[in-house]
Amino acid sequence: MARKSSKYVVALDIGGTKLGAALFDTSANLIGRARMPTHAREGPDAVFARITRLIGSLAERHGINTDKIRYVGVGCGGPLDSETGVVYSPPNLPEWDAFPLKEKLQTHFGFPAYVDNDANAAALGEYRFGAARGYRNIFYITVSTGIGSGLILDGKIYRGTDYSAGEFGHIVMARNGPKCNCGGRGCLEALASGTAIAKHANRAVRRSPDSLLARLLANKRGPLTAKDVADAARKGDPLAQQIFQDAAAYLGLGITSAIHLLNPDIVVLGGGLTNTGRLLLNPVRRVVSERAQEHLASHVPIVRAGLGKQVGLYGALAVALEREKS
Amino acid sequence: MARKSSKYVVALDIGGTKLGAALFDTSANLIGRARMPTHAREGPDAVFARITRLIGSLAERHGINTDKIRYVGVGCGGPLDSETGVVYSPPNLPEWDAFPLKEKLQTHFGFPAYVDNDANAAALGEYRFGAARGYRNIFYITVSTGIGSGLILDGKIYRGTDYSAGEFGHIVMARNGPKCNCGGRGCLEALASGTAIAKHANRAVRRSPDSLLARLLANKRGPLTAKDVADAARKGDPLAQQIFQDAAAYLGLGITSAIHLLNPDIVVLGGGLTNTGRLLLNPVRRVVSERAQEHLASHVPIVRAGLGKQVGLYGALAVALEREKS
Repeated sequence: MARKSSKYVVALDIGGTKLGAALFDTSANLIGRARMPTHAREGPDAVFARITRLIGSLAERHGINTDKIRYVGVGCGGPLDSETGVVYSPPNLPEWDAFPLKEKLQTHFGFPAYVDNDANAAALGEYRFGAARGYRNIFYITVSTGIGSGLILDGKIYRGTDYSAGEFGHIVMARNGPKCNCGGRGCLEALASGTAIAKHANRAVRRSPDSLLARLLANKRGPLTAKDVADAARKGDPLAQQIFQDAAAYLGLGITSAIHLLNPDIVVLGGGLTNTGRLLLNPVRRVVSERAQEHLASHVPIVRAGLGKQVGLYGALAVALEREKS
Repeated sequence: MARKSSKYVVALDIGGTKLGAALFDTSANLIGRARMPTHAREGPDAVFARITRLIGSLAERHGINTDKIRYVGVGCGGPLDSETGVVYSPPNLPEWDAFPLKEKLQTHFGFPAYVDNDANAAALGEYRFGAARGYRNIFYITVSTGIGSGLILDGKIYRGTDYSAGEFGHIVMARNGPKCNCGGRGCLEALASGTAIAKHANRAVRRSPDSLLARLLANKRGPLTAKDVADAARKGDPLAQQIFQDAAAYLGLGITSAIHLLNPDIVVLGGGLTNTGRLLLNPVRRVVSERAQEHLASHVPIVRAGLGKQVGLYGALAVALEREKS
């Protein structure tokens, strides 16, 4: 049987813009990696064909026959059912309506596939290889265009009834707050995501034509981004600082709620917005220390994710390792 | 050994005003029960002496020698460490500062004691004997003078890093909301607990001297209670209805957040305020159905606890059964 002599693990990170794959040995040493654009608009069958080519060529490049591969771990935008590996219309993957990703991978390659959503994969990656190693109750948050989270509780990923736990972006922060893409109102995502920061900034510059932000906007194509706001804040623009700190404050209040509900031993922040470093982390930490009960919060580190851009691949690897174990 | 022939289980419910004890056989059939006032002001040693008398006399009354008792399950106000059974200064038990409840019970009686906080005990009780039987991811909420919760996730109680998970009363609902007893601001407990409802009512009547609530206040000793507000709301008083619905709306928003974060398969509401029945439940359900994402919330029953006043004793029993199992 191929399985007996197989020695490699594939990690697959399916994003809306990029596909990443990596080859590891069974001790989690990286052998090599590869990536290509997703071209998500072409639909699931075209994307799936690219995935199989990506993995096939990666293995070939390293002289590894696919029958030496033991399994593949996959992180993919949710919602998805991580038991059956069926993907249900993620916002970043158009037409993936009940797409049987796990089954298709297994049929194509002949080795087991383990699929989880990208927030859970990232949480597992940080737990096994990143900033949360050695912790047991981990609240992993990803803040980028949206806000999501992955929960590791009593040392195990908690997926929830419909594999949908961790929708941290949609906890309610303000009864009459701004509308959210989800149809709700006052969701954390509508107040503290990169999208919310950019939206807020593009509105605010109209009232502050002399701000650095307004000058930035005048000199660029297209609207301001969260990164523009962060850059202007770092340069001392009071408007940009206000917008950024406001978002960070809401994130801090959301984390305060999660600390009270989940009593974690660490909070890990990943996602694009954390590239702003202390600009985000400092006000978040300050708000948590002001608002959370001291006996719950004072010993809980709030740290930046440790895997950086590698979180997708190491997360996918961790998904496979976690499933093989159980 | 006594243990071999032992056939009974004691459940002990330690409250700030009442102590309850029950005797069950090992199949969870109730043999008998007893209660007495806590007289908490007398301090832990006096209360502990009452507890031992309560259990001793209950066993005696049923002709059961305490060496026939296999173990005792205890629900008690937290914070407490449910491994060591040490209780750390619960608000309702003055001077219980690092009181070694488990150890003292075991030393006195000679059988194992299992201790958990009352919200966890109630959650376990509802899971095993009440409204949440057959569910797997249970968000149990208790709403009375304060607000707390117990989390059963993947079929197991989740206690958190410091046995303090489930502090649902202190999730942040409003950035600049009213002050909370915990020192925070805008906590759910400061907006939706029985205490908050009463406080709100006692203020509001000053501006509405013609309301039924104001007349109620004029005809009674002492300030209005949450029960007064519920009674007036049921009689059609618009002010009381507004106050009650406002509190219920915040509770609904808090549950919305918990549904997004935890993706439970049932939400169970217990505690004194749920005696108001549909007056509380209807607006809670309406807000959740308006604000939560449909795919997460539409199939999640939001129900009243099934054990009513028995929840303390059945909860304590469930604490023991859960620990014996593991």
